[in-house]
Amino acid sequence: MNVTLSATLAANEDIARRRHAGQRILNLAFGEAGLPVHPALRERLTEASRDNRYGPVAGAPGLREAAAGYWDRRGLPTDPGLVVCGPGSKPLLYALLLAIGGDIVLPMPSWVSYAAQAGLAGARPIMVPTPPGEGGTPDPEQVRDAVLHARAQGRTVGSVLVTLPDNPTGRLARPETVARLAEVARELDLTVISDEIYRDLVHDLDAAFLSPAGLAPERTVVTTGLSKSLALGGWRIGVARLPAGPLRDRLLAVASEIWSSPAAPVQHAAAYAYTEPPELVERVAASRRLHGVVARAVADRFVRAGAGVAYPQGGFYLYPDLAPLRRFATSAGLASALLDAHGVAVLPGTVFGDAPGDLRVRVATSLLYGEDEEQRLATLDSDRPLELPWVAASLGHLEEALAGLTGRRRFAPWIPAPLISPAQ
Amino acid sequence: MNVTLSATLAANEDIARRRHAGQRILNLAFGEAGLPVHPALRERLTEASRDNRYGPVAGAPGLREAAAGYWDRRGLPTDPGLVVCGPGSKPLLYALLLAIGGDIVLPMPSWVSYAAQAGLAGARPIMVPTPPGEGGTPDPEQVRDAVLHARAQGRTVGSVLVTLPDNPTGRLARPETVARLAEVARELDLTVISDEIYRDLVHDLDAAFLSPAGLAPERTVVTTGLSKSLALGGWRIGVARLPAGPLRDRLLAVASEIWSSPAAPVQHAAAYAYTEPPELVERVAASRRLHGVVARAVADRFVRAGAGVAYPQGGFYLYPDLAPLRRFATSAGLASALLDAHGVAVLPGTVFGDAPGDLRVRVATSLLYGEDEEQRLATLDSDRPLELPWVAASLGHLEEALAGLTGRRRFAPWIPAPLISPAQ
Repeated sequence: MNVTLSATLAANEDIARRRHAGQRILNLAFGEAGLPVHPALRERLTEASRDNRYGPVAGAPGLREAAAGYWDRRGLPTDPGLVVCGPGSKPLLYALLLAIGGDIVLPMPSWVSYAAQAGLAGARPIMVPTPPGEGGTPDPEQVRDAVLHARAQGRTVGSVLVTLPDNPTGRLARPETVARLAEVARELDLTVISDEIYRDLVHDLDAAFLSPAGLAPERTVVTTGLSKSLALGGWRIGVARLPAGPLRDRLLAVASEIWSSPAAPVQHAAAYAYTEPPELVERVAASRRLHGVVARAVADRFVRAGAGVAYPQGGFYLYPDLAPLRRFATSAGLASALLDAHGVAVLPGTVFGDAPGDLRVRVATSLLYGEDEEQRLATLDSDRPLELPWVAASLGHLEEALAGLTGRRRFAPWIPAPLISPAQ
Repeated sequence: MNVTLSATLAANEDIARRRHAGQRILNLAFGEAGLPVHPALRERLTEASRDNRYGPVAGAPGLREAAAGYWDRRGLPTDPGLVVCGPGSKPLLYALLLAIGGDIVLPMPSWVSYAAQAGLAGARPIMVPTPPGEGGTPDPEQVRDAVLHARAQGRTVGSVLVTLPDNPTGRLARPETVARLAEVARELDLTVISDEIYRDLVHDLDAAFLSPAGLAPERTVVTTGLSKSLALGGWRIGVARLPAGPLRDRLLAVASEIWSSPAAPVQHAAAYAYTEPPELVERVAASRRLHGVVARAVADRFVRAGAGVAYPQGGFYLYPDLAPLRRFATSAGLASALLDAHGVAVLPGTVFGDAPGDLRVRVATSLLYGEDEEQRLATLDSDRPLELPWVAASLGHLEEALAGLTGRRRFAPWIPAPLISPAQ
């Protein structure tokens, strides 16, 4: 077994150590949502604190029904009997790999844990680039070629994964790309795993969002969770929507032997969240606006420093190409220089599957909202979050770091990015 | 992948369905602790409900320090840096299999999930019987032979597992057996995994408890959790104490790609629990007394019905041999008959690794304490729990079922079992 600590979690722990040692670090490496728990969810957790039962492996009936309703409202009619809950969507994704079997096609770049999980599960990932300008969905024609080639060599390929919208690029695949991928999956008899954990954080509510579950319902698993939209990462809750067929029983078998069930009080809070009461809908909307404003403002800084950036469309990530700024042999060397010389932590593209010489890095923008709950709530509530002193200071730190990296003394003069209307 | 739903969890879900359909079922199949959450733990969960961070993969520093103190007080000096937390000891055990690698020696019989997890991890379990009258520790000489034989055939064997005290037998291995096993493990360079989740529920506080971690500290991993001693099964928290060396980093790598971290609010409550404040020490002591009294009372019923039973020494299980009562071809057939004809759910020995023709079944006694929190607390607080109407009714149900199974009309006259002193 050749696996190392998850790159994102390792970076976060390294940053904590450096800060403990007195270093000033701007954390653009870790994908935590950076916002407080809504009080209504804290109340539900407290109300359920008597519940110490293991409960069903698939999750509490109330949570499965609520999650089914969540998907129903998004145009994906869902049988609660085909919902499976887990302690985060990460363990669900791992268990799906075991339950489906065979190798998996992954977009390149893609979230650090997909390929690592495949390795743990004894599978080999087949990395397929995304179409230019898109993210999260491997190019369908290249998927077809790669799977046929792998099968011709005797390999078993069981699944293809998409991330809608994407981590690390922040991009949302075009509906045409998703539709073509669904066709290819059907032709090749692949299960599609659609990781939609950032779905409710697509910045533009009018953007066309197409889930493969609507196109190939017989073979698509959708996973999501509350870690991003409601900032419950540390509570560990995820849900999966399965196609009818034997996969559910296989997934439950794996789940029953690895984790039994998610924490019972957390399941109660999650059941409430998935009913989408008004105060949580408003919280998600405010979070979406903030993530969009800040992600675009950070993208602006990279653009003005000369980097190549596809503007993020969802979540709180961007994936700039820093080759125009300064040559480094590898993205890892570039990330180290940014951290050691300029106190800015990002993740090199290599951990997402990029070639070492590609100088792209992943920038997470959600830890700019403040150092404590008070600051974060103020940022969430602000009409002009970029002007809050702590946000402005972080953006200033980034500007200086990019200027330092390029060798320029100071950054280009500040031009405010257009603010999004708070009445979205 | 050939894995089915965990036998214990499957049985519990089947019982829930049967009860929902109106059947009267005595649940002696499921290993839930059957007692309420202590209010102090509910308070700590509530206090920590603002914590939504992922936190370190190894677990929050406060929890690791508290768990180290827990082991220190049991004669196992522990470096908090060698403590790793997980969402239950079950996922920790699974991740250890991946991190250690190779095949694993398991006691026969042993908890249902060890062998299933080995299968998921791509390992083959080597089942070795326990010495007569003992449980949880495979016979050391047979372990030696089996490992040498497997290695001679080219297999890699990485670890041996013990359960102290045991599930399913409720028996505690003799110190001499544990000591000899530690020697064999050292000779064969095996990692010892010592599952001590029932350790604080050894009924007799004066019983000699020997952990292999005291004998072979360089190669022993101890796992435990709060599911049994403090009835927090549904909260999902476990901790592992690792030997110095590379295993910790390998375990953290696996953990980081499968579950990230346990639920943050639960970690806070667990940190409090592992400091062992007086009210929780008293709760564990009361639970230990109750589990012992009821497990022995249930054992009495089996003895009086003619079964062979080694009296339980810890936890809330016994493992009677029903062959003297009535012949069945398999323990599975016997368990089905008990359930269908007599409304008593137990698990057949086959799911613990016994040969199908052995007529042993696992009896869990912890779900006799009542149907709701009020009854369960009353049972916990009672000096004479066996005389409470709901406990007496369940014992009566069991007596009738055993009488029916043997073909006798009624059970032998009731002779009260000696009560343990409540001032233990």
